[in-house]
Amino acid sequence: MLVNTRTVRIEWGDCDPAGIVYYPRYFEMFDTSTAYLFERALGMTKRQYLAAFDFIGFPMVDTRARFSFPTRYGDDVVIETTVKEFRRSSFDVHHRLLKDGAMAVEAFETRVWSARDPSDPDKIKSRPIPEQVIARLSAGGREA
Amino acid sequence: MLVNTRTVRIEWGDCDPAGIVYYPRYFEMFDTSTAYLFERALGMTKRQYLAAFDFIGFPMVDTRARFSFPTRYGDDVVIETTVKEFRRSSFDVHHRLLKDGAMAVEAFETRVWSARDPSDPDKIKSRPIPEQVIARLSAGGREA
Amino acid sequence: MLVNTRTVRIEWGDCDPAGIVYYPRYFEMFDTSTAYLFERALGMTKRQYLAAFDFIGFPMVDTRARFSFPTRYGDDVVIETTVKEFRRSSFDVHHRLLKDGAMAVEAFETRVWSARDPSDPDKIKSRPIPEQVIARLSAGGREA
Amino acid sequence: MLVNTRTVRIEWGDCDPAGIVYYPRYFEMFDTSTAYLFERALGMTKRQYLAAFDFIGFPMVDTRARFSFPTRYGDDVVIETTVKEFRRSSFDVHHRLLKDGAMAVEAFETRVWSARDPSDPDKIKSRPIPEQVIARLSAGGREA
Repeated sequence: MLVNTRTVRIEWGDCDPAGIVYYPRYFEMFDTSTAYLFERALGMTKRQYLAAFDFIGFPMVDTRARFSFPTRYGDDVVIETTVKEFRRSSFDVHHRLLKDGAMAVEAFETRVWSARDPSDPDKIKSRPIPEQVIARLSAGGREA
Repeated sequence: MLVNTRTVRIEWGDCDPAGIVYYPRYFEMFDTSTAYLFERALGMTKRQYLAAFDFIGFPMVDTRARFSFPTRYGDDVVIETTVKEFRRSSFDVHHRLLKDGAMAVEAFETRVWSARDPSDPDKIKSRPIPEQVIARLSAGGREA
Repeated sequence: MLVNTRTVRIEWGDCDPAGIVYYPRYFEMFDTSTAYLFERALGMTKRQYLAAFDFIGFPMVDTRARFSFPTRYGDDVVIETTVKEFRRSSFDVHHRLLKDGAMAVEAFETRVWSARDPSDPDKIKSRPIPEQVIARLSAGGREA
Repeated sequence: MLVNTRTVRIEWGDCDPAGIVYYPRYFEMFDTSTAYLFERALGMTKRQYLAAFDFIGFPMVDTRARFSFPTRYGDDVVIETTVKEFRRSSFDVHHRLLKDGAMAVEAFETRVWSARDPSDPDKIKSRPIPEQVIARLSAGGREA
């Protein structure tokens, strides 16, 4: 599976009065990391791939994160992101957030490929993940 | 166990371009809900109870959320929060986020009662949860 | 002009490592306060009034805030919000954020009533503010 | 004066249901941009320079932003940041946020160099800006 690796600077505004990352900010970093994994696999920004495949995104249905040690503003952390498994319309993502090579946070996501319900645009429906998307994410080797 | 129930309005700024809550915002709501449960049990704001018990908070070590259906700006949701289990220095919190009585999101947290390490104020150490805190959270009946 | 007054609890997650509100959070509070002023004037949530008047909102074109003293988690602040002036499609909003009766933050906004451009749904165009909206916001006395 | 220039990707989570940046997020970008300007001038991360100069930061006292056109997720914008004027303990910052060379947002800040009040650590006091800091920020040419 393709692994996307990116470096993220922890900012002052990510941290709470204890001086460590306010943990909901990690979920923002992971959501962006998943978007970047798809961007890299598909060679399109999220805006472009939502249009190209005519869907509204891959809303989260289940996510879990384990926090081993805190990170602080000024830290540069590395986030490694990959899809662990594809099913018909859902898929599992795995993130490892590393500081100086040690895993500070590990996260798991299950998301569903989703589109507006044609019969009710206020509703969201799952859709089969396109073959091309699975192929592109399954291929790639491990690179920075 | 004491259950704290509060109503939260989903705001425009909580939602993403798909028009639904950007899921990291739910974790902010849950973090605040846990703080309110303690506030209610102890009769002090978070600022007051951090000072009274001389600790820096209860950082997250593990959290999971399951999303059954999305919520949108203008929705008033109810969040029910309770501690499921106390151990020596860690404890488990459970949240149910309801819209019109149906559970949209369920979340689980494991947190650790923590203080600055006296020998290195840059480090954080777990501490036993005070008996008084456990007693207050274990007591209370279920109220709005 | 109608004045909307609401109380906001400053939360742990609103604050930075200095222990005071991270100032971008104030703009979230003000954006929500403007939405609530309209909600109160029109008797509809933002979701409802966007649909009723067929527009996409009132994006900001100019905003300024002055910070007199910081607020901290656990503080309950009061935000008073009113429209200062309506023009054809733009209007000015004024917010006062008070702690214990003293003004901690004052903010000014100029916003534009906006809709999707019918000839290009990716574009946003200004629209005249409906008379009914101006009437409702101009009326009301000052209440909590 | 030194100008710091950085490229920022607008993310999905920065945008609201209208599909454009939720404007409080711009203030987060600007706050980080100011921190980066100082980081570059001083050759230290924010964590390091707060420690080196023994202060708690430069809280905002006045900020204004003007929004010319919206930006959207997937956009790569450029933020140019510089100090316009130093006074004894306060200073003015100017940001230009550009998309494809056109200025989408312009922002102004007045901040105060601040430290804990030695007689009451809950209070914050202004302090003279160190000469060395002014010298470093005044020097530099304009570079990417």
